[in-house]
Amino acid sequence: MPPRPDLVAAADDEARALAHDLMRKSHAALAYAEAETGLPGISRIAFGLSPTGMPITLVSSLSPHFDGLRTQPLCAVMLGEPGIKGDPLTHPRLMLRAEARFIAPDDPARPALRDHWLEHHPKSKLYIDFTDFAFVILRPLSAALNGGFARAYRLTAEDLNLPEDLRA
Amino acid sequence: MPPRPDLVAAADDEARALAHDLMRKSHAALAYAEAETGLPGISRIAFGLSPTGMPITLVSSLSPHFDGLRTQPLCAVMLGEPGIKGDPLTHPRLMLRAEARFIAPDDPARPALRDHWLEHHPKSKLYIDFTDFAFVILRPLSAALNGGFARAYRLTAEDLNLPEDLRA
Repeated sequence: MPPRPDLVAAADDEARALAHDLMRKSHAALAYAEAETGLPGISRIAFGLSPTGMPITLVSSLSPHFDGLRTQPLCAVMLGEPGIKGDPLTHPRLMLRAEARFIAPDDPARPALRDHWLEHHPKSKLYIDFTDFAFVILRPLSAALNGGFARAYRLTAEDLNLPEDLRA
Repeated sequence: MPPRPDLVAAADDEARALAHDLMRKSHAALAYAEAETGLPGISRIAFGLSPTGMPITLVSSLSPHFDGLRTQPLCAVMLGEPGIKGDPLTHPRLMLRAEARFIAPDDPARPALRDHWLEHHPKSKLYIDFTDFAFVILRPLSAALNGGFARAYRLTAEDLNLPEDLRA
């Protein structure tokens, strides 16, 4: 049973703006299917955007989700963490359904991704070029935005397209 | 390929203490299998402990993970959020593999769970008795603790048993 339709609204401008804001976070929680069992696994991931506003992460092959995403690219990403005060469930968060695509070391798109990533994740320069690290595009398929208690929206992949001025 | 054995240590006292500390958080991220597709889904959940130190959550039947956990009780829970400063991947987090068990409204165990829950989640008194809310025990099967970059531990269900003085 999905959430009752009357409780989940289609996105409006305010919901899209909140989603775009959450997409500019530098880390996220990732739900993936474990490679060996197919069962749900969860990891913290570094999160960023490509120069065109596409969600990406940088993953070590030593992490359990590396093989999980290789085996089952369909995954879910949650952005936005609770503040210090109040009920954590009232703080906004965005849940993306996404499809993971690994970027090969020699992919012509990698240098631009790398440069853009380093602007927002400067500390990753310590390991970004290790051979066991790879960029993974997390192409959004749809999303659910929970803006607080009883404020739920569904978003399409189009709703998640970042305006150009928010991509930097 | 799981993490290389030499990079993941068995739990020691320090790792267990850090895990127990993270288990006292009031919210978590949940990875579950979606009821209809079996694909990974992710949600923020309220998190707490039973009087005996068993992880529990309080879930609305309107949330997508309610049906997910009913269909596939095996799930994963991540506890611990990044601080404001530094690389988010260096902040400790605990990933529990757990089995969900729903507590029926007339379960004789519910009143004690309810009272204990309200001590730590006082704001939930607004909805705790709504008929669409249910307690769900999240029995830990095992866990991975990431204490920061290159500090990974595996923990057994026994390692996660909270000492009595930490259960209150």
